[in-house]
Amino acid sequence: MKGTVCYIPQARQIEFHEYEVPDVEPGAILAQVTRTNVCGSEVHMWRGEFGKRGVMPGHEMVGRVSKLGKGVTTDTAGQPLKEGDRITPVYYRTCGLCVNCREGNAAACVTMGIRARRLVPQDPPHFHTTFATHYYIHPPHHVYKVPDHLPEHAASSANCALSQVFFGLDRATLRYEETLLVQGAGGLGLHAMAVAKARGARVIAIDGVDLRLKRAKAFGADELIDMRAYPTMEARMGRVRELTDGLGPDVVLEVAGIPDAFLEAINLVRNGGRVIEIGNISMGLTVAVPPAAITFKSISVTGVATYNPHYLHKALHFLSQHIDQYPYHEMVDAEFPLAQAAAAMDKSDRKEITRAALLP
Amino acid sequence: MKGTVCYIPQARQIEFHEYEVPDVEPGAILAQVTRTNVCGSEVHMWRGEFGKRGVMPGHEMVGRVSKLGKGVTTDTAGQPLKEGDRITPVYYRTCGLCVNCREGNAAACVTMGIRARRLVPQDPPHFHTTFATHYYIHPPHHVYKVPDHLPEHAASSANCALSQVFFGLDRATLRYEETLLVQGAGGLGLHAMAVAKARGARVIAIDGVDLRLKRAKAFGADELIDMRAYPTMEARMGRVRELTDGLGPDVVLEVAGIPDAFLEAINLVRNGGRVIEIGNISMGLTVAVPPAAITFKSISVTGVATYNPHYLHKALHFLSQHIDQYPYHEMVDAEFPLAQAAAAMDKSDRKEITRAALLP
Amino acid sequence: MKGTVCYIPQARQIEFHEYEVPDVEPGAILAQVTRTNVCGSEVHMWRGEFGKRGVMPGHEMVGRVSKLGKGVTTDTAGQPLKEGDRITPVYYRTCGLCVNCREGNAAACVTMGIRARRLVPQDPPHFHTTFATHYYIHPPHHVYKVPDHLPEHAASSANCALSQVFFGLDRATLRYEETLLVQGAGGLGLHAMAVAKARGARVIAIDGVDLRLKRAKAFGADELIDMRAYPTMEARMGRVRELTDGLGPDVVLEVAGIPDAFLEAINLVRNGGRVIEIGNISMGLTVAVPPAAITFKSISVTGVATYNPHYLHKALHFLSQHIDQYPYHEMVDAEFPLAQAAAAMDKSDRKEITRAALLP
Amino acid sequence: MKGTVCYIPQARQIEFHEYEVPDVEPGAILAQVTRTNVCGSEVHMWRGEFGKRGVMPGHEMVGRVSKLGKGVTTDTAGQPLKEGDRITPVYYRTCGLCVNCREGNAAACVTMGIRARRLVPQDPPHFHTTFATHYYIHPPHHVYKVPDHLPEHAASSANCALSQVFFGLDRATLRYEETLLVQGAGGLGLHAMAVAKARGARVIAIDGVDLRLKRAKAFGADELIDMRAYPTMEARMGRVRELTDGLGPDVVLEVAGIPDAFLEAINLVRNGGRVIEIGNISMGLTVAVPPAAITFKSISVTGVATYNPHYLHKALHFLSQHIDQYPYHEMVDAEFPLAQAAAAMDKSDRKEITRAALLP
Repeated sequence: MKGTVCYIPQARQIEFHEYEVPDVEPGAILAQVTRTNVCGSEVHMWRGEFGKRGVMPGHEMVGRVSKLGKGVTTDTAGQPLKEGDRITPVYYRTCGLCVNCREGNAAACVTMGIRARRLVPQDPPHFHTTFATHYYIHPPHHVYKVPDHLPEHAASSANCALSQVFFGLDRATLRYEETLLVQGAGGLGLHAMAVAKARGARVIAIDGVDLRLKRAKAFGADELIDMRAYPTMEARMGRVRELTDGLGPDVVLEVAGIPDAFLEAINLVRNGGRVIEIGNISMGLTVAVPPAAITFKSISVTGVATYNPHYLHKALHFLSQHIDQYPYHEMVDAEFPLAQAAAAMDKSDRKEITRAALLP
Repeated sequence: MKGTVCYIPQARQIEFHEYEVPDVEPGAILAQVTRTNVCGSEVHMWRGEFGKRGVMPGHEMVGRVSKLGKGVTTDTAGQPLKEGDRITPVYYRTCGLCVNCREGNAAACVTMGIRARRLVPQDPPHFHTTFATHYYIHPPHHVYKVPDHLPEHAASSANCALSQVFFGLDRATLRYEETLLVQGAGGLGLHAMAVAKARGARVIAIDGVDLRLKRAKAFGADELIDMRAYPTMEARMGRVRELTDGLGPDVVLEVAGIPDAFLEAINLVRNGGRVIEIGNISMGLTVAVPPAAITFKSISVTGVATYNPHYLHKALHFLSQHIDQYPYHEMVDAEFPLAQAAAAMDKSDRKEITRAALLP
Repeated sequence: MKGTVCYIPQARQIEFHEYEVPDVEPGAILAQVTRTNVCGSEVHMWRGEFGKRGVMPGHEMVGRVSKLGKGVTTDTAGQPLKEGDRITPVYYRTCGLCVNCREGNAAACVTMGIRARRLVPQDPPHFHTTFATHYYIHPPHHVYKVPDHLPEHAASSANCALSQVFFGLDRATLRYEETLLVQGAGGLGLHAMAVAKARGARVIAIDGVDLRLKRAKAFGADELIDMRAYPTMEARMGRVRELTDGLGPDVVLEVAGIPDAFLEAINLVRNGGRVIEIGNISMGLTVAVPPAAITFKSISVTGVATYNPHYLHKALHFLSQHIDQYPYHEMVDAEFPLAQAAAAMDKSDRKEITRAALLP
Repeated sequence: MKGTVCYIPQARQIEFHEYEVPDVEPGAILAQVTRTNVCGSEVHMWRGEFGKRGVMPGHEMVGRVSKLGKGVTTDTAGQPLKEGDRITPVYYRTCGLCVNCREGNAAACVTMGIRARRLVPQDPPHFHTTFATHYYIHPPHHVYKVPDHLPEHAASSANCALSQVFFGLDRATLRYEETLLVQGAGGLGLHAMAVAKARGARVIAIDGVDLRLKRAKAFGADELIDMRAYPTMEARMGRVRELTDGLGPDVVLEVAGIPDAFLEAINLVRNGGRVIEIGNISMGLTVAVPPAAITFKSISVTGVATYNPHYLHKALHFLSQHIDQYPYHEMVDAEFPLAQAAAAMDKSDRKEITRAALLP
């Protein structure tokens, strides 16, 4: 049986490569991809922001077990696993041995980046990423069964967006009754709002699009700041101070994904507060920062590139418990067959749609 | 009796104001300044980087008790205090009640900045800062006796430079056997090296001046990186990786005080590592930062504006124990009478001298 | 005007002392007590468990401002304060300077115990404790206005029971989705359940009295363990493991107040988990503990004697937000005039009532 | 080729079982044991304190690579590994997936205890423990090369005693300039003193044997408390307060291994301080503890059963750096051939010797 996997050789081009579906080594799992999302990373890839070399897109996914390698009888949480079961995998591998892994910060595994750079479809087992019909999961893996009552549109963003903001809020130790300001009400931002509310924090959301502000409200935001009503950074700083006894929020989460938002996060957060930087992932884009602002405000800024693998399990559990509370079905607002991946990325880039799903 | 206190009305000008030495309210202390240093902050003031309004210079000091307010019988550590005793005070006041104070981070007291902005010599009790013959210490104060065997040149930098880097290394939880990279071998940097060595860390120092590199060695640096031999950021990144098994240091301390050093700190620190930002204190100076570097490296950046007040006690204790181990007398390399404060700041600005002391 | 204050000279005796209501020094506040509870501590006093010397009972209270000392214009949170306003005070004083205070753990202030031991009604200003018509609050104090919509029965336990468990759960860093087991569904336990639920934890409650189990349910417990159905420690260990995937709860809160419960907490908590010890406060009562259980299970046990003063503000805010969600009015189930303090303590000791209020 | 492995069927009996040396599966390592110590655990086994079932003794060891399983080319730190190389292994296995492993506390791995209970010599691969000629190391393992200049007497205690106290001091966050009190100057205690001094702490040692007190001094103790001079707990409490400004030490490390020492640790530590419990490992031995002492003193007690595996690497590095500074050769004061294991344990039990080594 043959399968298909995508490759972006350069900005705004996509190739479809076909390979025989591989056998699985002991401990590995082959999944059939049933849904994979166009995450912000794929849009950055589509724009060519990851450099001149080609890249393989796709990592947010849900699928079904197609083949189980010898010795695999359960998912990583110990639940029995068999062919046909719905699963979602952690999309990267951590070493368990580096300075970060061994101190409980596997999200910063120093070998992760090294491995990630080399992927091309020609190298076996070919199905390295999830813009594809199949996905090869190497041992030792982190794979979890998707609870039966969880729809695919909700589960599909668990292994990236939700797990990452869940982990990010823990890294910044967002506590009960603290105020979180979320810059950007896209997928990451909405997930973060739901998680923050569940742990008893107050949420302020900033965005400039009606639909996104409406969703922020639906996902629990206590206060909305419309960028059209507060068009300058100074105006937004003033409004945020009004809403926070003149201090600023305890924690700011940057998921707008533009460099200016990083500077604004530093200016918005209260003295002694914490900024979580997740949205900016294009190395070539910069913003002029006065380091003295960090000094004088005694703030901390923490970058979060991925998440500790077991957060995927927490994420699925969170969705299980809150699936009826929030409109998760609105998070994905367009569906495409895999063959139209280019259109899906193009429309995402032009913000005609918020989050697209590919159904291979 | 009259005393003198300085004022910088605008860049590169200084005024000497004369006032009757005030009485002290209950709980307050009046000190006679015996030595006060030209710290980096004063150089920034001299250059006019603090805005168009004038400022009152001076905070690193050692002095003698001139008058004790009613009820003051001991220093803050409970040691008996009498007129004539040598003391050094914390140079700012914290509220004990704000969100930061009550969580053990008084260094980020939100009322501190508010109070600090208003000082002019005309307002009683006039002697607000230490480029002066006298210094008025309000209750509730943090004042500590200077151990008898501690020379003034060493004690005078305890209440700013040493306390701040001591606190900074604790904020970044620098641990035994970790590697600390110090950017800049000035007063803050040298103090940090001594403290880091005492707790069992390895130290790499970067500087570009022979004398400063020599002092870094004397204050415990295990490795020196001469900026003349490694003139570009890329060259220094390569050298640092050679010295750290390809990873980069666990912690980078920015005390060079220029925006470029902040960017370099982000680039030098290992994935998952920590940057302490202390040196940059001029709000108008910026550097182009790619926020994605913070995201992808999963690093933390922590600004440190001052220190928790009791660190001054730790700092004095540290000096007591290590006074014979390090050449503290080399830290201050020029002495001036108060009347020549302008010359002291000017020569400091032009880097003709490293650290000047004023002897009122 | 005269006022009355109580004294327990020895077990099961109470005296009423009458003094002229004192003037207030600058910074102090005199409050008229409107309600004060019989907390567990007072029952221990009543039984004579605090030693042979007499003690002054009363600390959980709400009252009205009777006199404001010079300079007092706001409560500790900065809200305007005037005579007649309803307030509740922190019932002890912390130094702000000791090793614990300065690291953000004022609840363990080393001077607190020293001061607390000396109280007798004969010493001015006489009104040291709250089984009294008046209460003298020394500067620097922590006093907060009681929100208008908060009934006295709810507010009266804020300055002891609620603040302490709120702080205790923070000390043990109870996190979102963790499981908390509460030993004992008395006042402390019920408050803890409400707080734990608000931050997204799961709660298991152990008790052996119908009414108390019913209240546990009302205050948010997800699971109840009836000690009559599980009469031995082994039976309860089995049941708890059933409810926690065989592991045991992440955190156990001991508020049953008997030594056996401490041993059981160690046995119930999961490997690597955390025990919070609050309930046991009688130094003469012991239990045979195998220290090896602590070693092998790699657990932490943290004692919590009081709370950081600003938690009283958090506690009042928490009550404001949840007053309609939980049946706080059931927490106090008996009211007595001050003159019947003996009866109130006696009935509390014999567990005929759960929590008594004195209305002076 | 045949090898020998020991078994303790009941108190004070030992059996020697002979088996063919096994082949190694992919990823495994077979080591030839060159030195294994009689640690405190083995003495507890010898006394029958681990229950009625037999146990397999031996875990502190150094050896040489005898066979390398397929795929093993380096030690866990990435250093090349070949047959004949000197190594030391972590003596237990962690799962990497349980609630403790994934939060960076692998020392409390919940599966560790489960696996450890089943060992009998009859089960392949027979060489489960180190009172043996050979030792079978399963994948995924933590094995480190022993630095060439490190003598076997020093390296042999790295994988238990030194790693465990190193980890324990980190768990209790012993900081620069804090005071550590060590109860018991045996192997664990001496290692802890050296580690504490290297990170800048002050050390007080309690013991009652001349030779052990002398060694405590040699391993860096700043103050010695001779139990013969201070024969009661009260006397020692008084002496400790004299040495610590009336407060008590910041951290107490219990490595005396008797229940009374645990109670004394609680009484000795300062208010708000931390107790590390390592020494007590016999579940049947108890001490009467007043839980109220933990409450009133606001202290934390942390049990440490093993260590995070990578601490073995830290331990070897520590020994490399300090081998000439401390008299590590005095730590082991008796050597026996494997055949005399009974005598080695018997003399250890009767305290005729401090620490015995078996040389198979």
